Amino acid sequence: MELKGLSFLGTRRGTNTGTAFQAANPRTGEALPPVYHATSEAELNEAVEQAADAFASYGQLGGKARAAFLRRIADSLDAHTQTLAERAHLETALPMPRLTGEVARTSGQLRLFASVVEEGSWVQARIDPALPERKPMPRVDLRSMLRPLGSVAVFGASNFPLAFSVAGGDTASALAAGCPVVVKAHPAHPGTSELVAEIITRAVAAEALHPGVFTMLFDAGITIGSALVKHPLIKAVAFTGSLKAGRALMDLAAARPSPIPCFTEMSSGNPVFVLPGALRKGPAELAKNLFGSFTLGAGQFCTKPGIVFAAESSESTAFFEELKALVGQSQPFSLLTAGIAREYSRATEARAAQIPLAAAVSADKADNFTAEPKLFTVSLDQLLDEPELADEIFGPEALLVSCKNTDDYLRAAKALDGHLTATLLGDEEDLKANEELIRVLEQKAGRLLVNGFPTGVEVTHAMVHGGPYPATSDPRFTSVGSLAIYRFARPVCFQNFPQSLLPPELQDGNPLGISRLTDGKPEGKPDIVTEL
Amino acid sequence: MELKGLSFLGTRRGTNTGTAFQAANPRTGEALPPVYHATSEAELNEAVEQAADAFASYGQLGGKARAAFLRRIADSLDAHTQTLAERAHLETALPMPRLTGEVARTSGQLRLFASVVEEGSWVQARIDPALPERKPMPRVDLRSMLRPLGSVAVFGASNFPLAFSVAGGDTASALAAGCPVVVKAHPAHPGTSELVAEIITRAVAAEALHPGVFTMLFDAGITIGSALVKHPLIKAVAFTGSLKAGRALMDLAAARPSPIPCFTEMSSGNPVFVLPGALRKGPAELAKNLFGSFTLGAGQFCTKPGIVFAAESSESTAFFEELKALVGQSQPFSLLTAGIAREYSRATEARAAQIPLAAAVSADKADNFTAEPKLFTVSLDQLLDEPELADEIFGPEALLVSCKNTDDYLRAAKALDGHLTATLLGDEEDLKANEELIRVLEQKAGRLLVNGFPTGVEVTHAMVHGGPYPATSDPRFTSVGSLAIYRFARPVCFQNFPQSLLPPELQDGNPLGISRLTDGKPEGKPDIVTEL
Repeated sequence: MELKGLSFLGTRRGTNTGTAFQAANPRTGEALPPVYHATSEAELNEAVEQAADAFASYGQLGGKARAAFLRRIADSLDAHTQTLAERAHLETALPMPRLTGEVARTSGQLRLFASVVEEGSWVQARIDPALPERKPMPRVDLRSMLRPLGSVAVFGASNFPLAFSVAGGDTASALAAGCPVVVKAHPAHPGTSELVAEIITRAVAAEALHPGVFTMLFDAGITIGSALVKHPLIKAVAFTGSLKAGRALMDLAAARPSPIPCFTEMSSGNPVFVLPGALRKGPAELAKNLFGSFTLGAGQFCTKPGIVFAAESSESTAFFEELKALVGQSQPFSLLTAGIAREYSRATEARAAQIPLAAAVSADKADNFTAEPKLFTVSLDQLLDEPELADEIFGPEALLVSCKNTDDYLRAAKALDGHLTATLLGDEEDLKANEELIRVLEQKAGRLLVNGFPTGVEVTHAMVHGGPYPATSDPRFTSVGSLAIYRFARPVCFQNFPQSLLPPELQDGNPLGISRLTDGKPEGKPDIVTEL
Repeated sequence: MELKGLSFLGTRRGTNTGTAFQAANPRTGEALPPVYHATSEAELNEAVEQAADAFASYGQLGGKARAAFLRRIADSLDAHTQTLAERAHLETALPMPRLTGEVARTSGQLRLFASVVEEGSWVQARIDPALPERKPMPRVDLRSMLRPLGSVAVFGASNFPLAFSVAGGDTASALAAGCPVVVKAHPAHPGTSELVAEIITRAVAAEALHPGVFTMLFDAGITIGSALVKHPLIKAVAFTGSLKAGRALMDLAAARPSPIPCFTEMSSGNPVFVLPGALRKGPAELAKNLFGSFTLGAGQFCTKPGIVFAAESSESTAFFEELKALVGQSQPFSLLTAGIAREYSRATEARAAQIPLAAAVSADKADNFTAEPKLFTVSLDQLLDEPELADEIFGPEALLVSCKNTDDYLRAAKALDGHLTATLLGDEEDLKANEELIRVLEQKAGRLLVNGFPTGVEVTHAMVHGGPYPATSDPRFTSVGSLAIYRFARPVCFQNFPQSLLPPELQDGNPLGISRLTDGKPEGKPDIVTEL
């Protein structure tokens, strides 16, 4: 696959007249060929109109056909693992094993959604049969199911160049739901994006789908992304990135003449509460695991545990000393982009002017892309006075919040903003003693963990990668796991429809064999006895 | 129950120091005692803080206890049917049979949600068990279910003083989900609101719930409603009313430092497409049923069929003449408020200046509350040029759109905004010939009807009372039917939790006996074979 640097407009590639930009290798700073060209607004309109045209057929396509399409993309990603990982490695400086693993995660996500839509029950089919004898008025036949929203704008994320980019979780769930996707490629990895877009485009052709099912736009600035979110033919938005950019997209989506759902996954400190039992098991081990988690991927994970609450004790002092030693002995990391590295420097320097920098690598700053791990400390009282001290810093940094005792944790938890995750480290006795803390944390995060670290995000049916603002724009949804499909579908009720005009999901006899509710009860199950 | 005219603040009633207002009897124009007093901002804060306090316990209450609470409210509403309907009749001029029926619908809604949360499967429990042997990494135990959002602000609607007001569908679904409710009472029926609030407050006490589970605020202006939506302790909003007010609330919710879900049900023309078979069955009958639907409740239904597409033919001419005759012979209606009547006059006069007024009652305008039924006509071409001619007018009015032929319907449908409903009237042959029209309408409305009228809204499991903007703020939700509960809940994932700390919905052995998914498959069912 040859890289051309041009947008994907459905029936054709874009022109090379837009503003030029190139990816940079974070290890060397060198510009990577080819030159990329920003999509023009006319080309954007063309792509979005192609997508809207495609919806007429793709939105009606059956689950099995959509599954075949998703699996074809997955198979082709797997077949190109080495090519994809090598280009992504050049563009992101993430290690090769991480990137080959990320290709597998990306194809795995596509196959998960393929299995969901092939099986078909996700549409939540509900049938309330007519009751012609009901008094005082007969009841008409009512049947509802989820249908796709329409064209979805997906923004590639910098930190997962494969799994949350062009063919990532947002695209997979939107395509699975029956929505054409218009991707705004992240300018930090345009080559990886182009390779993946080529794979998807070939799959569209091989499955004989409308070419507008998948399109992709380039821009190193914000013009095209903003225009995309404002376009009247776009019906939903999915984004993973910074709070600033995510909030800007939310505001654009909400200010449209016709507002649309906009799921943005943004900012999370992923608080960790260290309970006595965890320290008793070994402060050194705990420090090592925590350090591993907050520096994984150079600290560029949405779920990086950036805020650690620890109550004063001799064990917690040992834990803290160990953590400081690990940070002090660590190596600088290459971050994804010069912009992220610059922001990391700015934010950590600003924080160091306010609160103690407990540990940092004392390496010379090698280049524009490098970041040294850093550990800050603050007292809970100061943090409660100045909550912005816990604002997310993207990179290999953590904030240790010293509490007088574990009773302080409840006060700390109640003051938290929304997060993707909240973690409790302790033994069963600790957890029993902190049930109220758990109940409060439940209101603050989409995922609660016991004795684990949040950076491992399984892509399964029960996963929730969401949470109250500012973790996401809407706590009712997730961007990881099979529940992510529900961002892109809406219920439609068919009243008094003849069988032949009903979707198969709602026809008598249940031709697709899916799970359905009839009068609110699972079909084929006896009435549930609720009174004993 | 004695009317006091004071807010419900949880532990106490409000003071009588706020701006005074009274309800008016639309039939006579007379002010109805008692005097009501706007809630102060300090009292609003008190109510919202009570609600937030209540959430700690109410949000954790089991489904059976919540069901008992909802049923107690329902029983008490039924026991006070006559009192409620009489007061509502004075405040709204809606007929007594409609209002006694509306009490029954309101209690029925509460019982529907009681049955849903008592049964318990609505929480969508999902379990992905640990896979300790998985390579290269073990999988941790992941379990997720829906949990309530927190305190919900509910705005009473003018046109359903019971079923979409204080104990209406929004309150019922929010309380069912586990969310405390803060109602902003509609100022057009404060007495009905107070009676219902007293019933709910007594049920809160009888079930020994936290008094903040239900609070209610009064205000004849917009100050308290705006402050409520902006309050940081409010976690979601539900509203039914005008596009102008609904959009204002959406904008407030989106502009908060921490934006929240805001479901507003607003504006819908509920287009009706008349196909040849329906006319062949009898133009007179069709005209009579349509007239009955668009004047039901004086045309003050969200689902009023306000836009009727008819293709030129001799039968459609007969249908049109019949409709004109029905309108011309009809009686003026009392509208809900002087403001609605004023707006009806303004909007119909403005429309009459642009397009032909085909028929209207020629009665003298009796008073400030009266509205004459009106029928307008416009050609499809003119409507496509001036789409604002089809903007919703709240009241007994309809717009007949004349089309050259039924092929025009597709063009008409593609140009439609979002609506709550879209209706097709015709025989099976007509429907077969218009499958593409149906597919287009599916993108435009939350409910598609065949050979019925949209004003009958069943409260069932399959009902969808929603649709793309401007019908609602978010097409992924409904405000009527058991699906309405999903507006107020969010998924929470519990990772590696000990059994004793899991909610019963997620514990091994399924102690509540609910439907759950394990690894994406219904529990107790064999693996689904997807390849044949």
